[in-house]
Amino acid sequence: MNQPFLFHGQDAFWVEQIPDALRVTVAIKAELAVEHLYIRCEPDNEEELIAMKPGDRKNRLRYWHGELPLNHDKDLTAYCFKLLTRNQQWWLSGSGVTERVPGREFHFKFNRCHQPPDWFSQQVFYQIFPDRFNNGDPSISVRAGEYCLKGSERPTVVKDWGEPVAGHGSSGASEFYGGDLRGIENKLDYLEQLGVTALYLNPIFKAPSNHKYDTTDYLTIDPHLGTNEQFAVMVNKLHQRGMRIILDAVFNHTSVDHSWFDKYQRNDSMQRKGAFGHPDSPYRHYYQFDGDSDTYISWKGIDSLPKLNFSNPEVQNFIYAGDEAVIKHWLKPPYTIDGWRFDVIHMLGEGVGAKNNAHYVQAFRQAAKSVNPNSFVLGEHFFEASSWLQGEQEDGAMNYYGFGHPVRAFLAGQDISYHPCQIDAATFAQWLDEARSKIPWLNQLSQLNQLDSHDTARFLTLLNNDQALMQQALIMLFAYVGTPCLYYGTEVALEGGQDPDCRRCFPWERVEANHPMLGFVQQLIAVRKEEAALQTGSFQWLHALGRQLAFARSFGDDRVICVLNADKQPVSLDLPVWQLGIEAGQADDLLAGDNLIVRSGMLTINLLAKEGKLLKLAAK
Amino acid sequence: MNQPFLFHGQDAFWVEQIPDALRVTVAIKAELAVEHLYIRCEPDNEEELIAMKPGDRKNRLRYWHGELPLNHDKDLTAYCFKLLTRNQQWWLSGSGVTERVPGREFHFKFNRCHQPPDWFSQQVFYQIFPDRFNNGDPSISVRAGEYCLKGSERPTVVKDWGEPVAGHGSSGASEFYGGDLRGIENKLDYLEQLGVTALYLNPIFKAPSNHKYDTTDYLTIDPHLGTNEQFAVMVNKLHQRGMRIILDAVFNHTSVDHSWFDKYQRNDSMQRKGAFGHPDSPYRHYYQFDGDSDTYISWKGIDSLPKLNFSNPEVQNFIYAGDEAVIKHWLKPPYTIDGWRFDVIHMLGEGVGAKNNAHYVQAFRQAAKSVNPNSFVLGEHFFEASSWLQGEQEDGAMNYYGFGHPVRAFLAGQDISYHPCQIDAATFAQWLDEARSKIPWLNQLSQLNQLDSHDTARFLTLLNNDQALMQQALIMLFAYVGTPCLYYGTEVALEGGQDPDCRRCFPWERVEANHPMLGFVQQLIAVRKEEAALQTGSFQWLHALGRQLAFARSFGDDRVICVLNADKQPVSLDLPVWQLGIEAGQADDLLAGDNLIVRSGMLTINLLAKEGKLLKLAAK
Repeated sequence: MNQPFLFHGQDAFWVEQIPDALRVTVAIKAELAVEHLYIRCEPDNEEELIAMKPGDRKNRLRYWHGELPLNHDKDLTAYCFKLLTRNQQWWLSGSGVTERVPGREFHFKFNRCHQPPDWFSQQVFYQIFPDRFNNGDPSISVRAGEYCLKGSERPTVVKDWGEPVAGHGSSGASEFYGGDLRGIENKLDYLEQLGVTALYLNPIFKAPSNHKYDTTDYLTIDPHLGTNEQFAVMVNKLHQRGMRIILDAVFNHTSVDHSWFDKYQRNDSMQRKGAFGHPDSPYRHYYQFDGDSDTYISWKGIDSLPKLNFSNPEVQNFIYAGDEAVIKHWLKPPYTIDGWRFDVIHMLGEGVGAKNNAHYVQAFRQAAKSVNPNSFVLGEHFFEASSWLQGEQEDGAMNYYGFGHPVRAFLAGQDISYHPCQIDAATFAQWLDEARSKIPWLNQLSQLNQLDSHDTARFLTLLNNDQALMQQALIMLFAYVGTPCLYYGTEVALEGGQDPDCRRCFPWERVEANHPMLGFVQQLIAVRKEEAALQTGSFQWLHALGRQLAFARSFGDDRVICVLNADKQPVSLDLPVWQLGIEAGQADDLLAGDNLIVRSGMLTINLLAKEGKLLKLAAK
Repeated sequence: MNQPFLFHGQDAFWVEQIPDALRVTVAIKAELAVEHLYIRCEPDNEEELIAMKPGDRKNRLRYWHGELPLNHDKDLTAYCFKLLTRNQQWWLSGSGVTERVPGREFHFKFNRCHQPPDWFSQQVFYQIFPDRFNNGDPSISVRAGEYCLKGSERPTVVKDWGEPVAGHGSSGASEFYGGDLRGIENKLDYLEQLGVTALYLNPIFKAPSNHKYDTTDYLTIDPHLGTNEQFAVMVNKLHQRGMRIILDAVFNHTSVDHSWFDKYQRNDSMQRKGAFGHPDSPYRHYYQFDGDSDTYISWKGIDSLPKLNFSNPEVQNFIYAGDEAVIKHWLKPPYTIDGWRFDVIHMLGEGVGAKNNAHYVQAFRQAAKSVNPNSFVLGEHFFEASSWLQGEQEDGAMNYYGFGHPVRAFLAGQDISYHPCQIDAATFAQWLDEARSKIPWLNQLSQLNQLDSHDTARFLTLLNNDQALMQQALIMLFAYVGTPCLYYGTEVALEGGQDPDCRRCFPWERVEANHPMLGFVQQLIAVRKEEAALQTGSFQWLHALGRQLAFARSFGDDRVICVLNADKQPVSLDLPVWQLGIEAGQADDLLAGDNLIVRSGMLTINLLAKEGKLLKLAAK
């Protein structure tokens, strides 16, 4: 297909917000005989074509400009571009260049009312599973047999730091290694030196299991991790270093041991009976029982995790609506956390399923923003989250669908269910594009990209410990659109299979030994923080074929190219950097230090097997 | 790509509704070494994989079956299929077979609560622009200079039947030819003989223009077209013939001459002053004025068409909410129309734009269904209407986006704006698939497919009067998923450029002369009515490349193949009918009468230049 080159970025260089309108810019091949170029929008749900005007030429590119009125009737304004030559038409949307109007889901999007806070996309996040990071205060560690999980079934088990965790599918939730908040605080120098700027902690509120997704008290730090006061001090220290922190909010369900539910009647002394076994309990309607029976709705049928009943105003007040609601409580002094990561946010609501979910997610957002408009609302979604990411619900999601899954498929040949999944670079690129282009640009930047987490096997282990491929994955993590998040231990090549093996203790001896991965990750983080183009720059494919890919991130004249060869053979690639407006110039290797020359709009790069590069482009 | 054959229809053969669940069937290549085949659904917004079981084999196909629980938390249940072989995975959704999970918009959909009435997809519709169809009662025809449109600017003009209409862009709205309801009634025998079963009339309520999209009275048939009583009699006669009728509902705006607005103070005698020029008018808030000024919101800025203010409860009551609301009034006896076609339904709402549009469209639906649950709610949309077609808003749309536009692009090389648009059969197929697969199957069947309408140039004229290509377009119209609608005169090859030229008088002399197109259309209509597969059968591509395409519609063992060669050269196509489960059999040409033989699962068809065929397949 004889396609015209046609490109529209969505960062500040390409989209400028002016009162009630956007000034938008498109780059096209200057030699193309354009008869008309239109912005296509829908001010009243009906197509309107707004003529654009040609502007400056830069080498082989001509920039066209136009002004797009923002919608009055909705928060979101969607648009795409229509180009006419004498005999043909071309459209440009998030799904690329097409010969006919693209489906509405792929139109570029801008939400005038609900935008994520700027700070998020400037961060490098670090996820910590508290029990496994560092033990700073052995005096508060869980003791063996101290208590039992699930009634009397599982007494707590204590293991030595570094001892293997229980196998996948076994009752790993009752074994403890003693990591705690003091342990994190003691490693702030380490984290700052590594370069990370923000922490995401798995749950730290009172809960019997080691993972603490079974809350028994939303207002108290688990005493085996620390105290509320200690947490406040830690946040303060983080903020003094210019670092941020977000916490895990588990509001879909509680523990059966929460005093509201009290399945095993551990709170006999309490005046107010728990909901289980007591149809007259004042907390009965905090949950969803079948009449007066003991049958209740639980998360995924796991009976230790009863689902909260969000149609109950008391639950609403406690979680988000009241002045002292949990969501607000921890955002306020003395804690002042910077945002929430909401666990299985798409699954909560009323009854079985997730009835009226969107309403509650919006309410969570409003609650958070009412305390701090710059707080961040992050949703956990294992699968496509496009409808939660249009602006008025979440700022960003744990980007499994639009980053983790495609990278895993392309580099590790597996999907999220560990089924074989074989895709080439073209399908990989199309997957990334599809996921990205369905949501507003600012939300794209605010996606939390991760290679792995406490819920997945570690990426390195999925790669059978192939360090070269792991480095490619890390380059992708730090170069792609969205905010990178390292799962603790990745920087020292920590291995681990499926949950709970992916929650091994941090091997501090590898830091001592200066593990080779550590310097590499440190370097990547430094590059990410140095290059604004990687944080907020527009995204442009230069190559995606077979096992090789290359893309550019540009912010004005700052341009960084990411190029990966996932093949077992060396390869030479010719990249059309003329599409960035560059005919001649130089490309500096940001990791290896040497440089390459751009000639006639092309950059030739030789890559070893499984080699990846980040190149900074400078026009001559 | 070595794709497995993998197919899922959505008609009753493939999807059976049982209480709270669907039994679904998939056909795959029997020789494929399947390790697992899953239904993929989201009962609580989270992926669930449900194992399917292999069932009967039919030649090269194996049928697999599974049971999919319907969602509890929403009306819509979406699903797709995941197939695992030892090394690979394949997904099947409305966008076809992919190597990774498809985007959510393409998952198959079923709405358990809101389904269109069955009768619609069994119809063959016929659209009539009343002033131009037939003059049955000259005594009520508009007289020259009888009144003026737009204040005193445009006196009515009367033209002889068949005289050329005014040119595009001129003030054609004030010229009249005298068509009326009696004229339609007089032609019911003709219409029944032609085979059409349902009428869609452009607006017939009181309005000064010939098109009557400028209503002055929603409760009165325009006296130049007939009377309310006469209309009631006509509907009765239609129903006695087993025919149906839907009317045009223009609720976005009124005429400036509506007594509520009364811009030119024609209703001086009225006790209650109109809204224009009278801030104290009781109707002032029926419209949307800028304070006490004379500035008001109008449709697309056309100041003769002020937009109704749907946030006003009086407007709500009058149009849809009250017991005697307009929507209900005409659905009740003595009129008992069968449904409404809502003009620019996506554009109405509150203020500039279409604020809260979805709310009002749902309310329109509820109003209609409250009188007659089998009434039909049809929306006018020039562009993509997917979000209105998920079930709870419209039953179907005027399917410009998913039928008219792609057919126009493929056969006439133009888009809806008359810009050049060149697409091949592969892009054409992909466009049809995309539009279709975003909405539930029952709504796909209830789309009103048209080649042209009162708002577009006639298709034949777009084809430069190429009757062979026109016949292809008509074959497509009658074979494709959705309900066919002929625009009056198409059956006698009526020509016409852009509005108002597309509204020429019906050339009855061509019926007398037995125009060759008439028999062809009659035959197509008869085939459509004879073959249930064409009305409600599943849809399956067999070929789409270059200028040729072929697809099958199947309902159980009834199978009709539509094959088109849009090229100027003859061509021979080998169609893989083994994908329908047929190895040997016969294909009867439903239009030309001869037959072909299926051998080894393939059907070879020789097509002349610009030839199209409908073939009925019978297995041996």
